[in-house]
Amino acid sequence: MAETTGEATAGPMNGAESLVRTLVAGGVEVCFTNPGTSEMHFVAALDRVEGMRCVLCLFEGGATGAADGYARMADKPASTLLHLGPGLANGLANLHNARRARTPLVNIVGEHATYHREYDAPLTSDIETLARPMSAWVRTGMSAAEIGRDGADAIAAARTAPGRIATLILPANTAWEAGEGVAPVPPIPERERAGDEAVAAAARALASGEPVLLHLGDQAVRGPGRVIADRIAAKTGAKLLAMTSNSRIDRGAGTVPIERLPYPIDEAIAALKGFRHIVLIGATQPVGFFAYPGKPSLLAPEGCETLTLATPAQDQLDALERLAEAVNAPPARAPETGPLAEIPTSGPLDQDTIGAVIGALIPEGAVICDESLTTGRNFFALTKASAPHTWLQLTGGSIGLGIPMSTGAAVASPGRKVINLQADGSGLYTVQALWTQARERLDVVTIVWSNRAYAILRGELANVGARNPGPKAIGMLSLDDPAMDWVSLARGFGVDGRRVETLPAFTDALRHGVATPGPFLIEVVL
Amino acid sequence: MAETTGEATAGPMNGAESLVRTLVAGGVEVCFTNPGTSEMHFVAALDRVEGMRCVLCLFEGGATGAADGYARMADKPASTLLHLGPGLANGLANLHNARRARTPLVNIVGEHATYHREYDAPLTSDIETLARPMSAWVRTGMSAAEIGRDGADAIAAARTAPGRIATLILPANTAWEAGEGVAPVPPIPERERAGDEAVAAAARALASGEPVLLHLGDQAVRGPGRVIADRIAAKTGAKLLAMTSNSRIDRGAGTVPIERLPYPIDEAIAALKGFRHIVLIGATQPVGFFAYPGKPSLLAPEGCETLTLATPAQDQLDALERLAEAVNAPPARAPETGPLAEIPTSGPLDQDTIGAVIGALIPEGAVICDESLTTGRNFFALTKASAPHTWLQLTGGSIGLGIPMSTGAAVASPGRKVINLQADGSGLYTVQALWTQARERLDVVTIVWSNRAYAILRGELANVGARNPGPKAIGMLSLDDPAMDWVSLARGFGVDGRRVETLPAFTDALRHGVATPGPFLIEVVL
Repeated sequence: MAETTGEATAGPMNGAESLVRTLVAGGVEVCFTNPGTSEMHFVAALDRVEGMRCVLCLFEGGATGAADGYARMADKPASTLLHLGPGLANGLANLHNARRARTPLVNIVGEHATYHREYDAPLTSDIETLARPMSAWVRTGMSAAEIGRDGADAIAAARTAPGRIATLILPANTAWEAGEGVAPVPPIPERERAGDEAVAAAARALASGEPVLLHLGDQAVRGPGRVIADRIAAKTGAKLLAMTSNSRIDRGAGTVPIERLPYPIDEAIAALKGFRHIVLIGATQPVGFFAYPGKPSLLAPEGCETLTLATPAQDQLDALERLAEAVNAPPARAPETGPLAEIPTSGPLDQDTIGAVIGALIPEGAVICDESLTTGRNFFALTKASAPHTWLQLTGGSIGLGIPMSTGAAVASPGRKVINLQADGSGLYTVQALWTQARERLDVVTIVWSNRAYAILRGELANVGARNPGPKAIGMLSLDDPAMDWVSLARGFGVDGRRVETLPAFTDALRHGVATPGPFLIEVVL
Repeated sequence: MAETTGEATAGPMNGAESLVRTLVAGGVEVCFTNPGTSEMHFVAALDRVEGMRCVLCLFEGGATGAADGYARMADKPASTLLHLGPGLANGLANLHNARRARTPLVNIVGEHATYHREYDAPLTSDIETLARPMSAWVRTGMSAAEIGRDGADAIAAARTAPGRIATLILPANTAWEAGEGVAPVPPIPERERAGDEAVAAAARALASGEPVLLHLGDQAVRGPGRVIADRIAAKTGAKLLAMTSNSRIDRGAGTVPIERLPYPIDEAIAALKGFRHIVLIGATQPVGFFAYPGKPSLLAPEGCETLTLATPAQDQLDALERLAEAVNAPPARAPETGPLAEIPTSGPLDQDTIGAVIGALIPEGAVICDESLTTGRNFFALTKASAPHTWLQLTGGSIGLGIPMSTGAAVASPGRKVINLQADGSGLYTVQALWTQARERLDVVTIVWSNRAYAILRGELANVGARNPGPKAIGMLSLDDPAMDWVSLARGFGVDGRRVETLPAFTDALRHGVATPGPFLIEVVL
């Protein structure tokens, strides 16, 4: 039974400390954690290293979703600290969303000591295989001496355009044995420039006299890219359209307004009808979110040409500038977002009145996290003239992002109010993240649209041709027996809340939430 | 842009219905679901097929954990219905536990239509790769005509000894296109018999006059196996010891008592000290739950021989009978569980007094789900003379099983009271499962040990040699800022609850919970 058993290093820096110092030196300053035994040396190292803010999460989906929200606002990666295969597994759904958002993110996943894995202890699993589907870069640390360099490589992988998920697996003995100090982050490649032929082809399409859509995603849709795209539109008559789901859009009064490709497939097909050329700029080609019987997967109309001006990994602002020059676009014009609607003081509590209230009360600099799904389909249009703000969306369709994402966005954005527009069924996946908001005193207002159903699925049941659903099927889409009490849930996690059932009550609650520091939850009974 | 787009079948039975009918015909009568768009035809089929009970869960970890608890009690698989890769990912942590419990389980994971996958729609991911680490059998359905047979194969895979996780991926068009009716389940192999040499070797060890440990797991530890093992012990002086974590033990007054290998590594090493032979019967060799610096991975003492009488996949009862015959064991003796302690009426609320109250109040036929971790280390010993009951444990170390497992156990065990002994930090991972208990009116009493910490990690921090933890490290193990209010959380999910801080209040609350139908939660503030 001879075996190697590592000894904890008594020296000045073990592998864990070398890794934490490397992360901090590489600009990773926040760690969203849910640690276990195998990560205890990493946790202990946090007290010996200045500069890493640790944010405890009650569930790993909260940690990964928060890291996504953080990076979208901070424009640099956070780290997560997760406990072996199951801990990583719990975080995968929001890593899926982060991957679709092209968010830079560094996961540190604890693992058994290298010499312990062969004994198949109960928590053993194949972590690398679990990590791969949601990660662009996966590595298992082999020694404490190299773990700092592994961390530096992970940062470089995460920061490589357009932003990637890097997962570093940290065997316990590579944390507790002697490390070798801080490793420098390797050079991060510049974004590739779009080819001249891509610019020329887009210019030809714009010169054809036929209807052209500039389809924007990633960098191109954020803010500055829209200004250039709008100059091109002013010259050529092209239309701008954002993807259905976007990582980040900086918008509101004084910015170039943009609509998004609708989620419902029939509306999406209608929105693309008549275009002869679709130019992709940081966007991917429009496809159905799901397949539906008798409906196409590719949404562009028959005979429409789809061109790529710049991929998400390429420099989209540069490509837009070159296209603007090629078409001889004029200088930027004043954006027309139209007037902001007045706050409605009477009437029903519906999507339009709610959207108008939100539109009027969004404070300048707010960060809106949008997981409102069916309830919120009008909200984007109704807020286009609001005070300047940032809009973050669910990008990968894996529900349960809103509460974690708003948590991470708030960590990244002190002084900015975060408002999370939250569908109820989705919010229940990761409701534990409310506790982290209370623990960290984060300025997040969570507005829960309490329709007590998986409402989106009621529409989808018909869309996929499942006719005449019976009581069992309807039951599987209903959350009303018993109805959740969101104010109790919030209180259970230490967050103050209020239930509203009328328009004036909603307006009053939102005013209160916006004006009051710390987390607050509003349950809107629909 | 030509492409195949499936048409929903208008015929009498589509693929989804063929699959549901095959599951029911194969004895799979419960489906723990959290469906999405791609699973709508499966959901719709539930109304056309008698015999499948659908239990809606708010989060997929609730569904997989419930399926584990169900199968442990029903001795046959339940199915789950999960939504694409992220839905499966959310269920993986409790699938890990189920895999370690050797639980038979059939996952149905929805997927995009076969022809839609190449377009990389937002919810697309590599589901097969995600499934493999926790599944013994993975298949993606290729056509509606074959999906019934795929389901039958999944059942056979799940039921093959010792019990396995089977994951069938269901592309949406294999659900909505024309199916081919009910497929019969292929023959399920009998459990293999242990070899004669294994029996002879164990008999030689028992005849050696040296100390022998019969280490029991799986079938061997449940109930009937312990009777045979005790006959062998009566003849040979061998000691019986269960694994640290066990799928199911039927125990209490009138049954053969058994201790478990302790979790803390020093205690585990001490428990095995002095043995010269360890005979594994449905158990795996004792290994450290984690690696610790300077401590061994294999826990058996130097020079101790480890023999396998029967693997978990083999027929352990047959092997025990043959060993009993080989050593000429006497008939079964009356088990000695000793007297049941009186209910303490005064004194502090601590592990010993709480254990005594639970021991006295466990009703006959109760199912105890044990995720009590640090708080509950005495509970097993203090309940050995309780009314006959069943004990289910966290087997894979992936915390967040208790509330889901108790939910599934209750679905499988009408008329039996389920009592879930729940550590607070662990319970927060999957707290949403309380709602399913309310929705299904399940007889579950959840007792939350509210120590407001990841208490197990405080011990582990020292065990792994992380000396002098600072405030950041301690903070990462603390759940007291803010303290969770479990009664509010339960109320939020529609479950009645009570907070107790004294021994009489705890006794009164447990009496109430045991006597009252439906779910009830007791928060014990420690």
